[in-house]
Amino acid sequence: MATKKKTARAETAESMGARQREISVSEFFLKNRHLLGFDSPRKALLTAVKEAVDNSLDACEEGGVLPEISVEIEQVAESRFRLHVTDNGPGIVRSQVPKIFAKLLYGSKFHRLRMSRGQQGIGISAAGMYGQLTTGRATRIWSKTKKQKHAHCIAVQIETKANKPVILEDVEVSWLPSFYQDDPHAEPTTWSHGTCVSIEMEAAYVRGRLSVDEFLKQCAIVNPHLQLHYRVRLLRKSNEKNGQTELIEQEEPWTTYERVIKKLPPPGREIKPHPHGVELGVLIQMLKDSPSRTLKSSLTQDFSRVSDKAAHYICETAGLNPRANPTRIAHQQSEALFKAINSVKLMRPPTDCLSPIGEEQIIAGLKKEIQADFYTAVTRGPTVYRGNPFQVEVGLAYAKPGENDDLSGDDPIRVMRFANRVPLLYMAGGCAITRAVGGVNWKSYGLAQPKGALPLGPMVIMAHMASVWVPFTSESKEAIAHYQEIVRELTFALQECGRRLSVYLNKRKRAAEAERKRGYIEKYIPHLALGLKDVLDFSEKEKERVERDLKKMLERTHLEV
Amino acid sequence: MATKKKTARAETAESMGARQREISVSEFFLKNRHLLGFDSPRKALLTAVKEAVDNSLDACEEGGVLPEISVEIEQVAESRFRLHVTDNGPGIVRSQVPKIFAKLLYGSKFHRLRMSRGQQGIGISAAGMYGQLTTGRATRIWSKTKKQKHAHCIAVQIETKANKPVILEDVEVSWLPSFYQDDPHAEPTTWSHGTCVSIEMEAAYVRGRLSVDEFLKQCAIVNPHLQLHYRVRLLRKSNEKNGQTELIEQEEPWTTYERVIKKLPPPGREIKPHPHGVELGVLIQMLKDSPSRTLKSSLTQDFSRVSDKAAHYICETAGLNPRANPTRIAHQQSEALFKAINSVKLMRPPTDCLSPIGEEQIIAGLKKEIQADFYTAVTRGPTVYRGNPFQVEVGLAYAKPGENDDLSGDDPIRVMRFANRVPLLYMAGGCAITRAVGGVNWKSYGLAQPKGALPLGPMVIMAHMASVWVPFTSESKEAIAHYQEIVRELTFALQECGRRLSVYLNKRKRAAEAERKRGYIEKYIPHLALGLKDVLDFSEKEKERVERDLKKMLERTHLEV
Repeated sequence: MATKKKTARAETAESMGARQREISVSEFFLKNRHLLGFDSPRKALLTAVKEAVDNSLDACEEGGVLPEISVEIEQVAESRFRLHVTDNGPGIVRSQVPKIFAKLLYGSKFHRLRMSRGQQGIGISAAGMYGQLTTGRATRIWSKTKKQKHAHCIAVQIETKANKPVILEDVEVSWLPSFYQDDPHAEPTTWSHGTCVSIEMEAAYVRGRLSVDEFLKQCAIVNPHLQLHYRVRLLRKSNEKNGQTELIEQEEPWTTYERVIKKLPPPGREIKPHPHGVELGVLIQMLKDSPSRTLKSSLTQDFSRVSDKAAHYICETAGLNPRANPTRIAHQQSEALFKAINSVKLMRPPTDCLSPIGEEQIIAGLKKEIQADFYTAVTRGPTVYRGNPFQVEVGLAYAKPGENDDLSGDDPIRVMRFANRVPLLYMAGGCAITRAVGGVNWKSYGLAQPKGALPLGPMVIMAHMASVWVPFTSESKEAIAHYQEIVRELTFALQECGRRLSVYLNKRKRAAEAERKRGYIEKYIPHLALGLKDVLDFSEKEKERVERDLKKMLERTHLEV
Repeated sequence: MATKKKTARAETAESMGARQREISVSEFFLKNRHLLGFDSPRKALLTAVKEAVDNSLDACEEGGVLPEISVEIEQVAESRFRLHVTDNGPGIVRSQVPKIFAKLLYGSKFHRLRMSRGQQGIGISAAGMYGQLTTGRATRIWSKTKKQKHAHCIAVQIETKANKPVILEDVEVSWLPSFYQDDPHAEPTTWSHGTCVSIEMEAAYVRGRLSVDEFLKQCAIVNPHLQLHYRVRLLRKSNEKNGQTELIEQEEPWTTYERVIKKLPPPGREIKPHPHGVELGVLIQMLKDSPSRTLKSSLTQDFSRVSDKAAHYICETAGLNPRANPTRIAHQQSEALFKAINSVKLMRPPTDCLSPIGEEQIIAGLKKEIQADFYTAVTRGPTVYRGNPFQVEVGLAYAKPGENDDLSGDDPIRVMRFANRVPLLYMAGGCAITRAVGGVNWKSYGLAQPKGALPLGPMVIMAHMASVWVPFTSESKEAIAHYQEIVRELTFALQECGRRLSVYLNKRKRAAEAERKRGYIEKYIPHLALGLKDVLDFSEKEKERVERDLKKMLERTHLEV
């Protein structure tokens, strides 16, 4: 063999020092791509769709546009797919496109506290990087803003060593690579602005609970203001030809999830950090970076909920001059300031920055998707973990046993999880939502439940967490971390739904009981009437009247159950 | 309140573009510090110890030094600790210290394929960053190389926005901040080189299964060549004084885990990537970066297991000139090359780069730590996942029920997990090792086992994965990802241990059975002899002889069981 056997010899501090090197964040995540959700071809496709759709929805909502999005998955070889996601959002200015799509840790959402789907600045570039890794192809973006006459089309790759974009193509084109173009029956698109991203990657298309189909369906449920078009074009294996299996393209129609609400949800407001959620190191950094010229104005301007009075009190407690320069404080007296801040009583963080789905919408969404007999939903008031406002919502749908083929009464219930209106499919076991559902005592609400596990029954639960910062358990954003405050809020909402369920189940039980009794009595009414006729010597007419009256009585009783 | 209510207005592409920003990797992990294992004060302390000890061990082994390490945890306030880890390794050259300790994604281990404890270039800087975040203090490093006359002492912090070190202090000092200094009975240290890192952080010291104590104990088991000194100095609450609880420093003695083997394990050899584990995108990058001038020499030199003949065959299959410039191939014909590479048969990756613990060592380690009756161990041959060589080992210790108070026969067995000789304590549920143990059918080896869960019994299993690249489920390196090949190898090793266990259990069962019979017969021998005496009219002497003979016979039978 050509490989030479090298014996590893002892290193010196100098030889080891010479080998130290910077690792770019792209190199790191390329080697650890399972952390980003790209560990299998099947999951890779879902993750890419998710990142693209999240971005489109965020962009539309921020731009004040009612979102219309198309998702097209096109199989180009046995294990290779091309993904196109197009939206009618505000578009992206040309200079930003390369970095947004081909640089990890770049974006507008990380440095602010505002409810949005994206928050890391990794997702879409990671999808492009995965495509590049597995196919060598570039990510292609078409985008047009309102002000631009033409759209631009840019092809980019990541130079992983430097974590920076390489532009392979950059041309002006006429708008837009419409998803309707190849459908002769559809109206031409009239979008005057928007963005389309196209990525080719090794992937696998599979249906089922963890599929793109399921993700988009759930997306439509929690985003009723979204008009969503979706199609998958698969290659079909035809007969063998010259000893080779030929793949034939199949024409598939578009599926459209219609917009149900013609109004955008109220936009999430950006907030400043709450002083009680800020750690010493962050406080120091904020003081250093403060645009304010005095400590007092830094406290009232850079943070939320610090009134003039509270700022004065803090400065006094810490023995600091309110007119001191914040930068100087950062270096010398930050610890005293930190202690003073944490000793003062402040209003809790503002919570009007959250935009929950709402009970009505949740029930409407469940009704659209899940055929059931009983629906209920609870939206809890906003609260706070580590200084971050958040809010949870829970919806519940219960089908009559046997009436919904998808929901068996003997299986664990189905749990649909959402974070900032994004469906979470993978890693259910590690998610605070699953833990909260398993932690509730469902037996007291009338369901069977193995200890600590999901209850059994023909039931679906959906739970949503809305926050300016969702604490995910990994960069792939598939599960919510087990913060105590979050699990507690979820538990309260689940218990409220559970109580309502138990009222319904009891009523149904009583109704069934009454129904049984009624049937029993009904059966004997003719005999009773006949007996009365004999005993009281009724005419046939009188007997019929009595029979009729008895039946009426019975019906009345039944209604009163 | 001073906070002004801002109404979120619709953004334009331009206003959104203006807000896009780069996110430094330090900022990212500061906000997501739970990904690095710094989510709770208790876990933070363990993670910091782990990262420091890993680095010390790696440095000693690379430098060819038998490792001696001291770990000291000093409580400085109710919830604040100072951690000192000192080693006798080769030391670190002065210019490298700031980046190694205060820059995320920097190091010598990421870019090579070689078995080592660290692999990401994040750990120790993350620990320092956490200290800085929670206390505002700098990380302090003392280090002396062989060539240096004096040691240097450097204090660094991370400038998180730029992910770069800020040097606060840099002075020459006389070596070394010895951990023996304050112990009058100890010999003075004679280390002529080494490194000490000191970090102050918010933390909690707790004993038990997930503690620093447990980590270090397990460390000593799988690193029998390590001499380890450990002590914790806690503050004790004394009586109240002037209405304030006073904290008193406690003197604690050092615990030393003695070195058992006076020889370093064979050093792990660095290998080149195997062509079949390389993805298209990586192949392109490697061709671009190749120092070789021809495609053929790039194939034979940059990869492992590509012979001249194989290189020729690959070039021919791809229709490429073996003397072509690799950089040019990268841009134009990489896909053809990729296909050709994957169509050729190659030897599997070299596996002599791995340094397992070894069956003998595993059993010795278990014997030292776990009081049990039966010990066994299996070291599997090396194999490959995704082009990366790896090797698994499993040890098993079974105690007689009731003889080891730590191991109850009714509880699930204990599983100790290791990756490249590093104990893994957290996230057991998400680890391939736990999955493999639960997946084995232990009932067939004589243990009770709830379906798919850990078996029950007074038993400990330790499993070790050695690899040039361990696929962890998160940056905090607490669990091994579920690669099929890894789970399969673990399963084989577990089954082999299980078979041996079942032989032991059967033997013990038969022995117990025989013992029972023996006791039964023994009880009746005097009666039997007495009966014989009556029937055969024996003398008292003859009766005694018969009784003795019968007992002897019984003993012989017993031994043959």
